[in-house]
Amino acid sequence: MTYQTALDLLAKRGVAVEQVAEIVHRLQSPYNADLTIEECVESVLAVLGKREVQYTLFTGIALDMLAEQKLLPDPLQSIMENDEALYGADETLALGIVHVYGMIGLTSFGYLDKEKAGIIRALNNNRSHIHVFLDDLVAGLAAAASARIAHKNKNARTYSAASSEENSVS
Amino acid sequence: MTYQTALDLLAKRGVAVEQVAEIVHRLQSPYNADLTIEECVESVLAVLGKREVQYTLFTGIALDMLAEQKLLPDPLQSIMENDEALYGADETLALGIVHVYGMIGLTSFGYLDKEKAGIIRALNNNRSHIHVFLDDLVAGLAAAASARIAHKNKNARTYSAASSEENSVS
Amino acid sequence: MTYQTALDLLAKRGVAVEQVAEIVHRLQSPYNADLTIEECVESVLAVLGKREVQYTLFTGIALDMLAEQKLLPDPLQSIMENDEALYGADETLALGIVHVYGMIGLTSFGYLDKEKAGIIRALNNNRSHIHVFLDDLVAGLAAAASARIAHKNKNARTYSAASSEENSVS
Amino acid sequence: MTYQTALDLLAKRGVAVEQVAEIVHRLQSPYNADLTIEECVESVLAVLGKREVQYTLFTGIALDMLAEQKLLPDPLQSIMENDEALYGADETLALGIVHVYGMIGLTSFGYLDKEKAGIIRALNNNRSHIHVFLDDLVAGLAAAASARIAHKNKNARTYSAASSEENSVS
Repeated sequence: MTYQTALDLLAKRGVAVEQVAEIVHRLQSPYNADLTIEECVESVLAVLGKREVQYTLFTGIALDMLAEQKLLPDPLQSIMENDEALYGADETLALGIVHVYGMIGLTSFGYLDKEKAGIIRALNNNRSHIHVFLDDLVAGLAAAASARIAHKNKNARTYSAASSEENSVS
Repeated sequence: MTYQTALDLLAKRGVAVEQVAEIVHRLQSPYNADLTIEECVESVLAVLGKREVQYTLFTGIALDMLAEQKLLPDPLQSIMENDEALYGADETLALGIVHVYGMIGLTSFGYLDKEKAGIIRALNNNRSHIHVFLDDLVAGLAAAASARIAHKNKNARTYSAASSEENSVS
Repeated sequence: MTYQTALDLLAKRGVAVEQVAEIVHRLQSPYNADLTIEECVESVLAVLGKREVQYTLFTGIALDMLAEQKLLPDPLQSIMENDEALYGADETLALGIVHVYGMIGLTSFGYLDKEKAGIIRALNNNRSHIHVFLDDLVAGLAAAASARIAHKNKNARTYSAASSEENSVS
Repeated sequence: MTYQTALDLLAKRGVAVEQVAEIVHRLQSPYNADLTIEECVESVLAVLGKREVQYTLFTGIALDMLAEQKLLPDPLQSIMENDEALYGADETLALGIVHVYGMIGLTSFGYLDKEKAGIIRALNNNRSHIHVFLDDLVAGLAAAASARIAHKNKNARTYSAASSEENSVS
């Protein structure tokens, strides 16, 4: 399955892969000084290649678009127009992306969702569009791509049943 | 906040509170022989009284209704018409209900989602409507209402720092 | 990272990979008639090759073993000896395994945790050992290995922005 | 069920309820200018009164204490001594606390886990003790107590099926 449909949809909603990759770079470069933007782009694309991620994007972005077109039944239409703070379905749905490289993505997701770095802030502050879901989906994408890089980091240690002794000097 | 809007929406989509309560009764009666259907109804209503649960219901049911009206953008419209097995956003969204009485609802949710008991099976087999989300939302409701009853069960034991000795005879 | 330490630990606690693979086969064969036990073994090993899965196994099994040795501080020691129904930390910890192939593992996990098929039931009924965590961890392993097979299934459909028309005859 | 055992255990590990309440106050005061520290203390105690929260605390703190006593089997002992960045079971277990007031706690949890505010940072930097689990558990407590306050906020709006019109002027 290719990620082209998902990429096109993100672009249509104002999100370029490079903008997501920049957030990933900021999250991971403290742990990995050699990390390039290209590697971050590659990681975002790997996340986007997963069917579950694509389905989650299609769903959340559809809700944003339908809210802009005022096609949602009430009270959902009002809730989304007000970007109700207690809504929560946006964060919940984004978990379908956050978890694709394991639970360690969860912390970054929460952090990004609150800090609203880079493109996430731009989406959140955009007054001409409704991006109730998209900012969380992008935070989820960046968190998952970041978790993928963390898991692949060559410096990660291996532990075995005998590792207590070996490691005791380090 | 009252649960009337949520109740009305469920009724409109063919789900009565009593049908959800029956599933709760089946789940909990093995652990609680005196449990009545009335207590199960009360527990479902308590779950429905939570804002987060209501928002989750509004969101999932809106997606079902828009799919019936063929108003979703593609490829989401096709995915929902085919009730695609790998979709997953329905189960993910339902977590916003499942967790309201803690993590112990998770097991019942998974079980109900696979067993498709009572009204859940009827929704799933209904060919004249699209209930991609509703069957999972109802499973989530029943699982949360069931967890609420389990937590309130008077027979549940209390453990303290000194309980090892006390309990050793039991 | 190899899975040998995790395999050895499972074997020491009475769980063979083939027993987990049998559960995976039962879960997936209705959707995939050609599925062999060998493919299921391979999928379980792939799940076991993930660091996050190994760490989760190490943690849960350590708690079981320390409870058998009566080394846990109270009240945790009493809670685990009584296999307290409302405990929940066993299911929660197992999520670190369940999610490694996405959210679709969640439903199977809940189902297995309640049905207690095959080796899961044997662990749960074993009176000479404490397996509070291990039965949930094995259910998580089987659910994740099953999700991995579902995602790889060649018959899975691909949806694109134009798929509505193509699929409308199906 | 009272929270005394959990309070005592937290105190023994160097965490006072007031320190958790301070974090809650920092999280919620931007949305609620009148919020007092006393209300935050009350909210932390309400979270601590939940059985599921107590069981999660007992489990995570037991693992920290056993690691200090070098009683864990390897490789878990080494992983915890090294506070391995990819460990993940600490964040996963903390979900048993984070979710008790719904999914909106998740964002605050991720944020606190990364920002390490107040007592969380002190625990994380403490070199004389092992607090692999405790910092995440405290972040989970603060996140749940904060979610509880957000849900109770009187200013929160109510949406009904007719709310689109009413709200359109606001």
